[in-house]
Amino acid sequence: MAKPNKRVYLDNNATTMLDPKAKELMDLYFCEKYGNPNSLHLFGTEIHSIIRESFNHLYEGINARDEDDIIITSCATESNNWVLKGVYFDILRFGEKNHIITTEVEHPAILSTCKFLEDLGVEVTYLPIGENGVLQVEALKSAITEKTALVSIMWANNETGIIFPLEEIGAICKQRGVLFHTDAVQAIGKIPVDVQKIQADFLSFSAHKFHGPKGIGGLYIRKGVELTPLFHGGEHMSGRRSGTLNVPYIVAMGEAMRQATLHLDFERNNVRRLRDKLEDELLKIEDVFVVGDRSLRVPNTILVSIRGVEGEAMLWDLNKYGIACSTGSACASEDLEANPVMTAIGADKELAHTAVRISLSRFNTEEEIDYTIDAFKKAIKRLRAISSSY
Amino acid sequence: MAKPNKRVYLDNNATTMLDPKAKELMDLYFCEKYGNPNSLHLFGTEIHSIIRESFNHLYEGINARDEDDIIITSCATESNNWVLKGVYFDILRFGEKNHIITTEVEHPAILSTCKFLEDLGVEVTYLPIGENGVLQVEALKSAITEKTALVSIMWANNETGIIFPLEEIGAICKQRGVLFHTDAVQAIGKIPVDVQKIQADFLSFSAHKFHGPKGIGGLYIRKGVELTPLFHGGEHMSGRRSGTLNVPYIVAMGEAMRQATLHLDFERNNVRRLRDKLEDELLKIEDVFVVGDRSLRVPNTILVSIRGVEGEAMLWDLNKYGIACSTGSACASEDLEANPVMTAIGADKELAHTAVRISLSRFNTEEEIDYTIDAFKKAIKRLRAISSSY
Repeated sequence: MAKPNKRVYLDNNATTMLDPKAKELMDLYFCEKYGNPNSLHLFGTEIHSIIRESFNHLYEGINARDEDDIIITSCATESNNWVLKGVYFDILRFGEKNHIITTEVEHPAILSTCKFLEDLGVEVTYLPIGENGVLQVEALKSAITEKTALVSIMWANNETGIIFPLEEIGAICKQRGVLFHTDAVQAIGKIPVDVQKIQADFLSFSAHKFHGPKGIGGLYIRKGVELTPLFHGGEHMSGRRSGTLNVPYIVAMGEAMRQATLHLDFERNNVRRLRDKLEDELLKIEDVFVVGDRSLRVPNTILVSIRGVEGEAMLWDLNKYGIACSTGSACASEDLEANPVMTAIGADKELAHTAVRISLSRFNTEEEIDYTIDAFKKAIKRLRAISSSY
Repeated sequence: MAKPNKRVYLDNNATTMLDPKAKELMDLYFCEKYGNPNSLHLFGTEIHSIIRESFNHLYEGINARDEDDIIITSCATESNNWVLKGVYFDILRFGEKNHIITTEVEHPAILSTCKFLEDLGVEVTYLPIGENGVLQVEALKSAITEKTALVSIMWANNETGIIFPLEEIGAICKQRGVLFHTDAVQAIGKIPVDVQKIQADFLSFSAHKFHGPKGIGGLYIRKGVELTPLFHGGEHMSGRRSGTLNVPYIVAMGEAMRQATLHLDFERNNVRRLRDKLEDELLKIEDVFVVGDRSLRVPNTILVSIRGVEGEAMLWDLNKYGIACSTGSACASEDLEANPVMTAIGADKELAHTAVRISLSRFNTEEEIDYTIDAFKKAIKRLRAISSSY
């Protein structure tokens, strides 16, 4: 296939471009200031101030208090595994409490880890998501028992973009004395994230979802909360997470967080406007549906269903135009199965296979969106013309 | 303190400068080719060939067979934790086998994880290291019982540079039907590393010890060997280790491995010659000792003891000359304790506190070494003149 001239990246819930400002800032720390910040000599100490500054951006980005911990990890998958397995070693394995509550639509890093813990004897409740994709807080309330150690609920869903009612959830957990973790991977950079407001004990994030680099993330841990390490070893990060610090990526993640925070208004206004324009145009086409009330979603995401058009077929047509979307989480995209979130919200099987996720970023332009609208129209026309089911 | 004009980095066992060739090659994958390789669209697929090429360099660097696995991790600390905890979940927790053998002088990532497993009921034998710093193979032989599940022994010691007899150890493990892991962090790039020759089941490595970036490493797993994941989640890396691939760092690590392999002769000849020159000059000074027979060490390392001079005091004086060395592993250097390897080899307490580790790289020049010899002489003279014990 000839390569398309145009490249339009609309798969920002899978991964993002590194912010060039973050790239520029980190560049010094590869071949020039390359010391280990744990070293006592000048190659180590000369890095301390930029590390401190980068941490400040992270603390400000999620409104953590100075006395709380933000621990650098290699990704949100690590952060999520750490919380669940840490709570297993701290609490669950002794059996007095043996219960975790999560949702049906969490990221595989949560769902697979829960399955693993079930094999070790832990009980897990997977809260269902209604037709509108929204979590019912009442369902959480009745699921909590005196055996519940942890509630783990994502801030925004990666497929639909739907925001979960975390303030209410946090208040319930606090009231019932249950630890509360949120996977905030899809919230940071899209909506304001405030660990104090939601009263979280743990919060996972991943830099490459907000224009930081791939392969670095973090775990917020509220002051005074214990958590058995996932990585035992040297005394890095106060002994909570061992391993030499990835200095350039910490610098880049700090700057990416700073930029993401600075651009929240831009996200709410400009990114949302482009998203809405694209969504409005798609909805004008017959038998096209979008999952979830727009007011409940992060500003950048559309999960669209186009009756009569297989999601994969749509992806390939868009790909010919140089447009990148996805049929579901890239973390599972080697399996061409029905979109699991579509299944969870009760979409019929045929429709579940038609889901296409479009996720914008602040780097998309109006011209790209106009081009995409045109490409979608052409692709839908072509694919429906050859569809056996439409 | 005024900053020194000169900067000489002699702490390469702690971390290294990124090879500028690796930096140049990875640069494309931050802001241009930034897709997730698991994505089906062109932003994902265009990355496949460089990823494949990078993996080839890793396979060639350690002589792995195509059918073996090399799994990308975030560092050797992760790889080491994964092996020990994976074997715990696969074998040890059922109790039929309940025993691990390691050495007294492993990296904290092994020793702390072993302590953690001891709390879970696992028995751990810590093999002692003799006065010469060398592991006695006979001690290993008699430590293996029918309860032993795993032997974990480093390839080369981070403090002394002493190489352990891994071919013999691997053969013993094979013969006794015990899994064999080696932490090869300090061997790669310094001496030839061949997983087949040592019959390893698992081998850990870390890019930043061979001029790759900090925050990426790997775990070699021999074909057919099971290992419960440390990170559960999406289906990345055949389900063995979840998390979005850190594309730029994989590219950089591949190139760093290629360069390290290409420079093995340079390491054996040129780096060794500079190391020997420095060591010879230091040994000419009265009451100066070096740990371990030179023929048994990797070519870049000197662990030197200078009677009457506290290791920390020496570091500070060298630091004023712009020279970076260490008193021990940077992974534990915030604690100013006696060097643990010096203690393990039975050095008296005073001498254990005088250890200074000097570790060269292929980027050091003869002029830097001459400057360092001069600085050492001046510092030793000054510090002994004010010493209360000399």
